[in-house]
Amino acid sequence: MAEDPLVVFTPSGKRGRFPVGTPVLTAARQLGVDLDSVCGGRGICSKCQITPSYGEFPKHGVTVADDALSEWNKVEQRYKDKRGLIDGRRLGCQAKVEGDIVIDVPPESQVHRQVVRKRAEVRDITMNPAVRLYYVEVEEPDMHKPSGDLERLIEALEKQWEIKGVEADLRILQLMQPVLRKGGWKVTVAVHLGDETTPPKIMQIWPGFYEGTIYGLAVDLGSTTIAAHLCDLKTGEVVASSGIMNPQIRFGEDLMSRVSYAMMNAGGDKEMTSAVRDGMNALFDQIAGEAEIDKELIVDAVFVCNPVMHHLFLGIDPFELGQAPFALATSDAMRLKATELDLTLHPSARVYLLPCIAGHVGADAAAVALSEAPDKSEDLALIVDVGTNAEILLGNKEKVLACSSPTGPAFEGAQISSGQRAAPGAIERVEIDPVTKEPRFRIIGSDIWSDENGFAEAIATTGITGICGSGIIEAIAEMRLAGVLDASGLIGSAEQTGSVRCIQDGRTNAYLLWDGSAEGGPTITVTNPDIRAIQMAKAALYSGARLLMDKFGVDTVDRVVLAGAFGAHISAKHAMVLGMIPDCVLDKVTSAGNAAGTGARIALLNTKARGEIEDTVRQIEKIETAVEPRFQEHFVNASAIPNSAEPFPILESVVTLPSVNFNTGGDAGGAGAGGRRRRRRG
Amino acid sequence: MAEDPLVVFTPSGKRGRFPVGTPVLTAARQLGVDLDSVCGGRGICSKCQITPSYGEFPKHGVTVADDALSEWNKVEQRYKDKRGLIDGRRLGCQAKVEGDIVIDVPPESQVHRQVVRKRAEVRDITMNPAVRLYYVEVEEPDMHKPSGDLERLIEALEKQWEIKGVEADLRILQLMQPVLRKGGWKVTVAVHLGDETTPPKIMQIWPGFYEGTIYGLAVDLGSTTIAAHLCDLKTGEVVASSGIMNPQIRFGEDLMSRVSYAMMNAGGDKEMTSAVRDGMNALFDQIAGEAEIDKELIVDAVFVCNPVMHHLFLGIDPFELGQAPFALATSDAMRLKATELDLTLHPSARVYLLPCIAGHVGADAAAVALSEAPDKSEDLALIVDVGTNAEILLGNKEKVLACSSPTGPAFEGAQISSGQRAAPGAIERVEIDPVTKEPRFRIIGSDIWSDENGFAEAIATTGITGICGSGIIEAIAEMRLAGVLDASGLIGSAEQTGSVRCIQDGRTNAYLLWDGSAEGGPTITVTNPDIRAIQMAKAALYSGARLLMDKFGVDTVDRVVLAGAFGAHISAKHAMVLGMIPDCVLDKVTSAGNAAGTGARIALLNTKARGEIEDTVRQIEKIETAVEPRFQEHFVNASAIPNSAEPFPILESVVTLPSVNFNTGGDAGGAGAGGRRRRRRG
Repeated sequence: MAEDPLVVFTPSGKRGRFPVGTPVLTAARQLGVDLDSVCGGRGICSKCQITPSYGEFPKHGVTVADDALSEWNKVEQRYKDKRGLIDGRRLGCQAKVEGDIVIDVPPESQVHRQVVRKRAEVRDITMNPAVRLYYVEVEEPDMHKPSGDLERLIEALEKQWEIKGVEADLRILQLMQPVLRKGGWKVTVAVHLGDETTPPKIMQIWPGFYEGTIYGLAVDLGSTTIAAHLCDLKTGEVVASSGIMNPQIRFGEDLMSRVSYAMMNAGGDKEMTSAVRDGMNALFDQIAGEAEIDKELIVDAVFVCNPVMHHLFLGIDPFELGQAPFALATSDAMRLKATELDLTLHPSARVYLLPCIAGHVGADAAAVALSEAPDKSEDLALIVDVGTNAEILLGNKEKVLACSSPTGPAFEGAQISSGQRAAPGAIERVEIDPVTKEPRFRIIGSDIWSDENGFAEAIATTGITGICGSGIIEAIAEMRLAGVLDASGLIGSAEQTGSVRCIQDGRTNAYLLWDGSAEGGPTITVTNPDIRAIQMAKAALYSGARLLMDKFGVDTVDRVVLAGAFGAHISAKHAMVLGMIPDCVLDKVTSAGNAAGTGARIALLNTKARGEIEDTVRQIEKIETAVEPRFQEHFVNASAIPNSAEPFPILESVVTLPSVNFNTGGDAGGAGAGGRRRRRRG
Repeated sequence: MAEDPLVVFTPSGKRGRFPVGTPVLTAARQLGVDLDSVCGGRGICSKCQITPSYGEFPKHGVTVADDALSEWNKVEQRYKDKRGLIDGRRLGCQAKVEGDIVIDVPPESQVHRQVVRKRAEVRDITMNPAVRLYYVEVEEPDMHKPSGDLERLIEALEKQWEIKGVEADLRILQLMQPVLRKGGWKVTVAVHLGDETTPPKIMQIWPGFYEGTIYGLAVDLGSTTIAAHLCDLKTGEVVASSGIMNPQIRFGEDLMSRVSYAMMNAGGDKEMTSAVRDGMNALFDQIAGEAEIDKELIVDAVFVCNPVMHHLFLGIDPFELGQAPFALATSDAMRLKATELDLTLHPSARVYLLPCIAGHVGADAAAVALSEAPDKSEDLALIVDVGTNAEILLGNKEKVLACSSPTGPAFEGAQISSGQRAAPGAIERVEIDPVTKEPRFRIIGSDIWSDENGFAEAIATTGITGICGSGIIEAIAEMRLAGVLDASGLIGSAEQTGSVRCIQDGRTNAYLLWDGSAEGGPTITVTNPDIRAIQMAKAALYSGARLLMDKFGVDTVDRVVLAGAFGAHISAKHAMVLGMIPDCVLDKVTSAGNAAGTGARIALLNTKARGEIEDTVRQIEKIETAVEPRFQEHFVNASAIPNSAEPFPILESVVTLPSVNFNTGGDAGGAGAGGRRRRRRG
């Protein structure tokens, strides 16, 4: 008797022998090959498409004959005629093994397919969403074996899909009976697969085979903006992205002023809770509209936010977060129903909030940790999420430390004389010639430098309106490199610097970046108060990072990751000239973009990642900067540009920092830390 | 070295040696003795009261010295002074073992104390409610070990009470922080202990030690009335009972007419769902008012009902229950939140619905099975819940069968010419002298028979208004025994019977029970149509029981249990003369009162019983009478009084059934089954 045919699957390399006539899907399942199917092998869903290969495969030791798979049967042929199949593809549930065969499972036929992330250094996302679709055929009711329709549906899910202990929301019971009958006892159900403490739950039911998809939301709830990505839970694709201003802004620009609002106004916390929940619903309407989908198809949502936003979103008074010991009501991840938060998505939609790391280090920082995975890093990574409040993570495979530092809104262009949010017309890149001290710059919306041909045309529609966060950082760093700004943060006079761009501005000097007055536009200068504001912010950021380095027992880090929308636009060199971040090889300073949002998307698409980040967060060592005596010392040192105590040898091997000193003995400019009361949680 | 003192606990008999100084509560816990404590041994709750015994105990082999327990300490003394302690009692958490001692744990100090049921033949209820109170001391927050207040509360519950994996409703998170601080980090929490699929959940939190109790509801949702018992979840006591008419009556008197209403009127099911839920809330207001408690202290509720009520209460269209194969939406037990059913109790209150046995045999029958436990019976028990629809259970330890039979409302006095609901003024007991054929009777509200002195005065306020269900059964049975009614159901004429009480009534005869015309009251007769209505009802009941006996393979049963409010008033002898129930030794026919309500109360007070009845229901064999060919045959035989085919030897050894035949050849009276179309589910 001849041996059973050998079946080799690629890319997994899994192989085994199966009797002639075994469907490819069956062989795949028995070998544990990741081959998708929604209809359970009935030739309906086409999710199990495979590509057979024919000919010689010395690598696998197989020769595949032309008749290694069965002829096309009616089901398969009908599917191809009606819906089409890519050339060379077969349906794994219909094609049967007849001889030795090599079968490729294309990515789109894998359940746990990878969602490719653009940045090279990060892992791709493995698809493992909380909610999946299953097609089942349910036994009809029988008077002699009375059991409920639901019990037979649950039995079908167990028998046909091996999902055990499924329950159903009451809603499903209320609408299930006509759907079962309409579908002729064949239905598609959306099942939330549950977690450690909740059983799988049927969330939705459609008659027959449901052709559509289901969606999830990854939401980054910031103090200033709320940004959401709408994702297809089958493919992992982002089908729409949208954002709105956080409507809580009317109660206070920064977090502390919102906590104060809740303390000063009875019911103020409830007002802010309503505001943010209403805002969410408006955003979800907007994003569903953009994607042209029914909002009720959104079955899962993941939220990341800082602790104050977290509490206000959950309807918890943030009072305790406004004072030591900054006690969170809860630090663990939250699994809720969307209705508990007044969110109008699918009526049984679920909500997952990542855990908070500490009273100042929220679920947004946890999401950054999930996206950037310092706990899996071989080298020592410093990850900084730059926003109104900076969250800082430092670690490697051995341990991870976290803290937050109140940078304030200067990095976002606030508190800066010509500052503005990053929007067309804002100066975002600056260069100053060290010899002539003359600047050139670029604005958002154009790639042309201000000294290049076509600049005037390029800016014709937007004009030059101000300077954004990354622009002010480059401007100040370039001023320092060009010698018009000294290490203490004083701008030299025209006399001291030899540049007419240095103009007197009250008792101090300012640097004139752009004079638009001839065209009726603004005059854009960098003033000494601007320098002071940035010094405060960068000193807070640096001293938080430095404190973690102390705790870790190191003086240098191997790499720096700048997260946050702002981080994406910062130039590594300029940040280091300012002393925002520790001295480091320049190309080891990378941007992670909206890492918090990415973390939310990972947690949405891969439920395994939820458990992992919960474990990681429990292991992260939390540092409370407010009570660390060395923080103040680091802060004072970091007020200088780049630093009055710590050397930046790598930076100095790349750039030259002129040794200028514009202090004429007065007290006008120096940005001593003592003159400023620390603001908590800006 | 002397041996450690011996500690003997009664009534458990558990014993062990413990070092001098061991608190009695600690000894009890180590031995697994059931000794209650809410405060965890802090001398606050007084739940751990014990009674030490002194002197010689030959039975236990112990002599107890006067100083076998420690002196009263300050905590214990203060408790006694402030709150009082019964003489001889000590606090188990404060009194320490000093020498050999015998300690009695009084019933009220046992967690799993027994709630005594009045009837001798049934087991008492073991207290094991779903929700319990726990006093805990929570660790204060620490900036250096940031964890949420909730996580520390959960940790305290785990460490101090060994409750693992506790979660909290979002509501608790929203109100917990000020409560923890108000209580100085000492709080009492109500914890729902969860079940197989849900983790324990914190439902309520009070600052410090909460002195009060929490409550649960056992609700019997009938087609006609809704009855509720409010129970103290600490003691198991019923603190108030109340009932209202089911507001759905306006949509139809019986179940089938309500199903029809839903079929005929778009949204009719939703109207009825709202009506019953509104009714529930009104009832709960009423019962909480009677008990003078805050409705928000009601944390758990158990409901029993027939399948149509079950579906309408849950908001499921009962359409499928109105037609073969009578498919239930769900047959399993339901665990819900009260808010899902629009019930306004504690905001996190839970609801438990017992499982349904089949499309016609509901959670009410399951509750009867829980209360009467045929599955634990040594002898073969027939349990009949008599209502508009009779639910019938037959079984013993080996197996249990169940069916329902559409008796219609005749047993409740409906469809009877002088019939009325059981209320003061209704004739409830009847005797007819076999010689004179003269009746005497008693009415509800008086113990005096109509031929006794004082009857006129006794009925002065109520009058004689009609005849209730148990009255009509006794009247007809007595007529049969007195020879004025023949086996086929015909009433003889005055001529045939020699009694002027037999009066002509159209083409048939009637029997005059009471002529109130002289006083302007009603004339109460038993007419031939009355006899026919009762014949239909009792034949349906008997043939259902007989069918189960066929399936069980028996011709007799060992005992009969009559459940339901009506069953409580039926005379066994008269029921048997009518042939309602199978032939049986008379004192083996007992009444179980509102067994469905009792079953609900058991499931409320003892969560273990929930799992047990779910298992039992799965094992019960369901018989669908509608499709059993022998049902019709049994029905025809059972139309005779008592039965045209089956002997009643035990009955005939007690009474004499006169062999009379009043059929004069016409077709007027005989109640042939063929003339009636069976009505399903009355």
